[in-house]
Amino acid sequence: MSKLVEEFNEYRTKMNEVILSKDNLVMKRLWNLDTNTYEEGALDKKTKEMLGLVASMVLRCDDCIKYHLGKNHELGVTTKEVYEIFAVANIVGGTIVVPHTRRAAEYWEALEENGSAK
Amino acid sequence: MSKLVEEFNEYRTKMNEVILSKDNLVMKRLWNLDTNTYEEGALDKKTKEMLGLVASMVLRCDDCIKYHLGKNHELGVTTKEVYEIFAVANIVGGTIVVPHTRRAAEYWEALEENGSAK
Amino acid sequence: MSKLVEEFNEYRTKMNEVILSKDNLVMKRLWNLDTNTYEEGALDKKTKEMLGLVASMVLRCDDCIKYHLGKNHELGVTTKEVYEIFAVANIVGGTIVVPHTRRAAEYWEALEENGSAK
Amino acid sequence: MSKLVEEFNEYRTKMNEVILSKDNLVMKRLWNLDTNTYEEGALDKKTKEMLGLVASMVLRCDDCIKYHLGKNHELGVTTKEVYEIFAVANIVGGTIVVPHTRRAAEYWEALEENGSAK
Amino acid sequence: MSKLVEEFNEYRTKMNEVILSKDNLVMKRLWNLDTNTYEEGALDKKTKEMLGLVASMVLRCDDCIKYHLGKNHELGVTTKEVYEIFAVANIVGGTIVVPHTRRAAEYWEALEENGSAK
Amino acid sequence: MSKLVEEFNEYRTKMNEVILSKDNLVMKRLWNLDTNTYEEGALDKKTKEMLGLVASMVLRCDDCIKYHLGKNHELGVTTKEVYEIFAVANIVGGTIVVPHTRRAAEYWEALEENGSAK
Repeated sequence: MSKLVEEFNEYRTKMNEVILSKDNLVMKRLWNLDTNTYEEGALDKKTKEMLGLVASMVLRCDDCIKYHLGKNHELGVTTKEVYEIFAVANIVGGTIVVPHTRRAAEYWEALEENGSAK
Repeated sequence: MSKLVEEFNEYRTKMNEVILSKDNLVMKRLWNLDTNTYEEGALDKKTKEMLGLVASMVLRCDDCIKYHLGKNHELGVTTKEVYEIFAVANIVGGTIVVPHTRRAAEYWEALEENGSAK
Repeated sequence: MSKLVEEFNEYRTKMNEVILSKDNLVMKRLWNLDTNTYEEGALDKKTKEMLGLVASMVLRCDDCIKYHLGKNHELGVTTKEVYEIFAVANIVGGTIVVPHTRRAAEYWEALEENGSAK
Repeated sequence: MSKLVEEFNEYRTKMNEVILSKDNLVMKRLWNLDTNTYEEGALDKKTKEMLGLVASMVLRCDDCIKYHLGKNHELGVTTKEVYEIFAVANIVGGTIVVPHTRRAAEYWEALEENGSAK
Repeated sequence: MSKLVEEFNEYRTKMNEVILSKDNLVMKRLWNLDTNTYEEGALDKKTKEMLGLVASMVLRCDDCIKYHLGKNHELGVTTKEVYEIFAVANIVGGTIVVPHTRRAAEYWEALEENGSAK
Repeated sequence: MSKLVEEFNEYRTKMNEVILSKDNLVMKRLWNLDTNTYEEGALDKKTKEMLGLVASMVLRCDDCIKYHLGKNHELGVTTKEVYEIFAVANIVGGTIVVPHTRRAAEYWEALEENGSAK
């Protein structure tokens, strides 16, 4: 598995555990709610994860982008589709989104390599 | 037609004309490119307009939200679907998105009324 | 009661009802969670509402600022204290916070007038 | 004088007085410092006011944009130059800057009308 | 002392010296003013540093978060209190604040370890 | 050549190639348009690159800052001038811009060293 993907997931898991161990109820409930948000509803999971990705891109949150790229990959979003999401994000959010798109492109390549290596 | 929708469109058209009359090439080309961005591709128009809507919401741009709500309405996005887009925007962007959601909800009602009045 | 405060509260209540009437579970749960967030805990309500105010100011959300100013006023935050919160927001967020501070100052005056008119 | 310019200046002056009357030292010193920032230095005033304008645009602060448009107008920035600043802001900040550009264009027209009416 | 805390402080001190060596008066005065902002006033230091922390979190500025976490720690803010500040920031600013909360949680652990190692 | 500058340019070039290889037309045209934006017009290149720099700073985009610092350096902007741009960015955008200013200052030193080493 690509080190980029692995490192992201490891740090995320480790720190989520630290946060949850403090028993802050608001944080816990927000995380549950976050999970519910992307569940099948009037919109399917794939559409919702694409919405999560574009929102993360225009807000320029690299880790959020990585997380949603992972989900998009799992749900079968194609490279052509992902780049159209990148395009919307870059037009709406401007060229300040470009550096985040570079890191997103790198992470997507890593996800693709992992996928074909399975 | 609801005054809310009409006023938004009138002001938008009037000021777009002022801006275009100054012949700034970068502005003109950006606007053409903006139109291209939402055209049918690997993703269909409806998905792209939903992406445009959620991106506008988390960036808290009321006029952008109105514009994309209009497009979503035209393309047959349902109220249930629109509220799931609102939900993603509010979870990703937090409660500071709520006041923009109130104005979005108001504009959506106006679009619905216009639609049923046709 | 000052028209400024009244109008804000009326519009807020009316649109919240529209949103809640659509039965989007994520929106409903987020709003419940939002209420819980500011309840007495390790930090008291007053401190939490001050945190909510400064966060709203640096994110430049006028309606969020009005809401938290109302809560701060109810909980007995003084004018001197409110202006120290304004100062933190302006230093952290820069002069783009100034126009929002002007509107916040206007709303605070309205809250003070209502208070003394009771 | 155009009502748009007059109303902006009147509200700004009135609320600045309210804020200053509260004697918050940090706010006062920040405002002095803000004035100093745009004074002649290694860069001339005109360049600095253009920097202030583009910064206000990408941060999407309508009142900051109006203030700096006024200063740019006073210092002889031409319409062609202002639209090149708009172009930089729209490319860097994306299409969410467009609605602010519409309001900026409207305010610039008002400044131009006032100028030619003098 | 934890390497995380040490490295942050070292880089910060080194680069602040570079910046100050250029004798830009506005930068110097802004930094003095920044120090004044958090001094005892109508609000005590602890409250002000909590305001600085939540503002830094919703604006998603990792280094600002680290700085204010350090100050909160010095002033005796407890882990329970810090997590309530995290909760406010995550509710107001949404799940894009989560990755910054992970890094904040890591830094807080480092501060706690240093404290107990003294 | 300083490793800092070299590494930034290498990663940027590598990832731009990945992105362009996917043949997304919107991305390609946005990048062409981005290049046009900073070309000589009513405003000269140097002024436009200073505008690009201050916009990148208030939006707190480190890679965008590095890119525009490189261009400013090439076009002969002096250290005194660059620090006045930093000052505008810090006043408009607040102390959350400070950590980005530290990284900008470090990159500027690297550009200066490379320049004198040529």
